[in-house]
Amino acid sequence: MGPGPTMVEPRVYAAMGQPVVGHLDPYFFQVTEDVRKLLGVVFGAGSHFNMALSGTGSAGMEAAVANFTIPGEKMAVFANGFFCDRISEMGRRYGAEVVRCEKPWGEPFTDQEAAGFIQREKPKVVAFVHAETSTGALQPGKAICDAAHSIGALVIGDCVTSLGSMPVEVDATGIDVAYSCSQKGLSCPPGLAPITVSARALEALRARKKPPSAWYLDLKLLDDYFDGAHRYHHTAPISMFYGLREGLRIIAEEGLEKRWERHRRNHLALVAGLEALGLRMHVAEGKRLWVLNTPRVPEGIDDLKVRRRLIESHGIEILGGFGPLAGKVFRIGLMGASSTRENVLLFLEAFEAALRAEGYSPAASGRAAAERSYDA
Amino acid sequence: MGPGPTMVEPRVYAAMGQPVVGHLDPYFFQVTEDVRKLLGVVFGAGSHFNMALSGTGSAGMEAAVANFTIPGEKMAVFANGFFCDRISEMGRRYGAEVVRCEKPWGEPFTDQEAAGFIQREKPKVVAFVHAETSTGALQPGKAICDAAHSIGALVIGDCVTSLGSMPVEVDATGIDVAYSCSQKGLSCPPGLAPITVSARALEALRARKKPPSAWYLDLKLLDDYFDGAHRYHHTAPISMFYGLREGLRIIAEEGLEKRWERHRRNHLALVAGLEALGLRMHVAEGKRLWVLNTPRVPEGIDDLKVRRRLIESHGIEILGGFGPLAGKVFRIGLMGASSTRENVLLFLEAFEAALRAEGYSPAASGRAAAERSYDA
Repeated sequence: MGPGPTMVEPRVYAAMGQPVVGHLDPYFFQVTEDVRKLLGVVFGAGSHFNMALSGTGSAGMEAAVANFTIPGEKMAVFANGFFCDRISEMGRRYGAEVVRCEKPWGEPFTDQEAAGFIQREKPKVVAFVHAETSTGALQPGKAICDAAHSIGALVIGDCVTSLGSMPVEVDATGIDVAYSCSQKGLSCPPGLAPITVSARALEALRARKKPPSAWYLDLKLLDDYFDGAHRYHHTAPISMFYGLREGLRIIAEEGLEKRWERHRRNHLALVAGLEALGLRMHVAEGKRLWVLNTPRVPEGIDDLKVRRRLIESHGIEILGGFGPLAGKVFRIGLMGASSTRENVLLFLEAFEAALRAEGYSPAASGRAAAERSYDA
Repeated sequence: MGPGPTMVEPRVYAAMGQPVVGHLDPYFFQVTEDVRKLLGVVFGAGSHFNMALSGTGSAGMEAAVANFTIPGEKMAVFANGFFCDRISEMGRRYGAEVVRCEKPWGEPFTDQEAAGFIQREKPKVVAFVHAETSTGALQPGKAICDAAHSIGALVIGDCVTSLGSMPVEVDATGIDVAYSCSQKGLSCPPGLAPITVSARALEALRARKKPPSAWYLDLKLLDDYFDGAHRYHHTAPISMFYGLREGLRIIAEEGLEKRWERHRRNHLALVAGLEALGLRMHVAEGKRLWVLNTPRVPEGIDDLKVRRRLIESHGIEILGGFGPLAGKVFRIGLMGASSTRENVLLFLEAFEAALRAEGYSPAASGRAAAERSYDA
C-alpha cells in the first residue's frame, strides 16, 4: 500500500507466462493494436496516437521531453513536487530553457496562477504533473492547457499516478502529450510506459528538423515500428505487452467510470478513518489524489518507527515523505487492485495499533469511521 | 529459430509470475545483487561494474554511446553490418564525430585493418559489434582493444548476440563497455539490457563534466540506485529482474563453458547439414557465429516462399537477410534454450522439404550429415 508498484492482478501474471513470439510477428502487432485501442479509452484520447514504450514511467517522461522540446526553446514547468523537478532536470538536459512556476510541495496552482505564468513567459512547451506521488496533490490541467493553447504551446502532462484510477481525459482537458506507467493504476508490473500524443503534437513532431538525441525513445521511429510500416526498431518486451493488454482488459471489464468511483469511495473512507484517528491531511480537501493519501505525521511521532511496525507486525508497506516532506507525511497508496474496502479497513486497524505502540493516542476508531463512510 | 527473441526457459516464466515487491525493497536489491554477480560470470568481467538496464538491447547500446561519448569528440566504428550502422547513428545523435572503417556485410576486420584504422584516426572511443545478427559474422575484439588502449581510447563492444552462448570474456579481451539483451543467449524474454563497465571506463564516467542528455540511461544515477546508496531513480521492472536472475542461474547450473560447447556443436552439425544440402555459408569458416547461421539462398529460389512454407507447414520461424543481404541469406538461430540437437535435426528435415517444394534439388540429406557431425 505504498506509492507503487502495486499489487498485480493474477490474470496479468498468467498472461506474462504465455510463450514469447517474435517482435515482428503478426500476432505481436495484434497485441500492440489492442493495447493502442485500450489505452485510448483509459487516456480518454479518441483522436490521439497511443502506444506503450519499452521502459518504465520515467522513460515515458523522457520520451515526452526529448521529442517535444527543442534545444534553446522555452519550457515552462509547474513545480510543486518531486516529479516536477525531474521534468525540469530532463528539460535542461535536452537543452530547453526551463522556467519554473513554484509553490510549496502539495499546493496545486490555481487557474489564475497557471494562466498568468504562461501568458507572461510565452513558452513553447508547458509541463505539469497531474498527480504528484511525492505529495498526494492533484493538479487540474484545463486552465493550463487553455492558456498554453492560446499562445500555441504544447502541454505535457505526467499521469503516472492517475491513469486508470482517476479521470485523465486528455481530449477533454487538452493535454497534448501524456504518459504513465504500467504499474500503479493499471496494476501490471512496472516496465512499460503508456504514452498518448495529440494530432497537433504529432504535427509538431513531424515538423521537427533534427531528431532528438534519444534514439531508443524516438517517437517517430517507434510509430514506424508499432504502427504503419512495422519497421524494426527494437525487440519489444513481448511478455510485458501480454501483461499490459490483460491489465487493460480487466479495466475495460470493470468499466472505467466504475473504477474511478471505487477509488474515490475507498479514498474517502480512508480519509474519514485517518481524521477520526486525529490525523490531518497534508493536501486540502478537493485537491487530493484518490490513489495516494498523505496524512501528516502527528507531532512527536517518528514516522519510520510506525512504518517499521506496520511492515513487521502487519505485513503492510507504506512509505514516508521525502524532500521537504521527509518525516512530515505518510504516503498511503490505494491503487488499482489494491484499492479495496478490505484493504482500507485492514490498514486502519493496523495503523491505529502501530501509532498506539509508538505512544500516540487516537481520538476515535479509524475503522469505525471508515465503515460509516461506506454506509453513508 | 530466428535471430531472437528465443524460446524462454519455463523456469524463467515461473520466476516472472512471483509477486512484485517494491523497487526499494531489500529483497529486490538482493535480486539485483545476484544479477550483478551472475552477469560478471557470463561477461567474464571480474573487476567490472555490472548491471541490467531497464530497457531492451538497443537501450544498452544507447547507454554505452550516451555515457561514453562526449559531444565533439571522435568515435571510431567498425562497420560491416546493421548494428554497426545503428551505433554510428547513435554516436551522431549524441554529438560525436563518427569515423567509420567499412567492409562488406559479413566480412570481419583483420587485426591489421583494425589496428591501422585506430592508429590513423586516434579516436577517443572505439565501437564494434562482437556478434552481428544481421550477417552471422563474429568480430574478435583483442586487436581492436589493444590498439585502442595503446592510444588511451575506450572500447564499446556490442555483445547482444553472443552473451551467454559464445565466449565474450571482456576482461581477457579488454572490452571496456559491453552490453547485451535478456533474450537470445540468456533465453529470457526481451526487456532488460545487461551492461558491464571496466574500471577505466568507470573512471572516465566519473570524470565526465556534463551529464549525458539521456537521463533514464544515465549510468551514474543508475549506479546510485542499484548499488551504493540505493537512491531512487526509476521503478525497475521487478518481474523482468526475477526472470533474468532465474535465466542466469540456469546458465550457472549448466556451466558457461559447457554451454558454449553445446552451441558450437549444434552450429557445426547445422552447417554440415546445410552444406550437404548444397548450400554455401555466407560467412567464411572460423568467422561464423555459433548462434546465428547465414547460408546463402540458392540461385533461383525465393527465400520468402521457403520461409513461409517452413512456418506454415512445420511451425518453424527463421528470418531472411535485409539491407545488402535481402533475399541473399537465410538467418537461422540456435540460441540458448533453442540450441539443441533435436532442433537441428528437425529443422534440417523441414528445411529440405521446404526447399524441395520450391523446386530446389538438394545434393544429399542434411539430416544424415548433421547426425554424422554429432557422431564424429
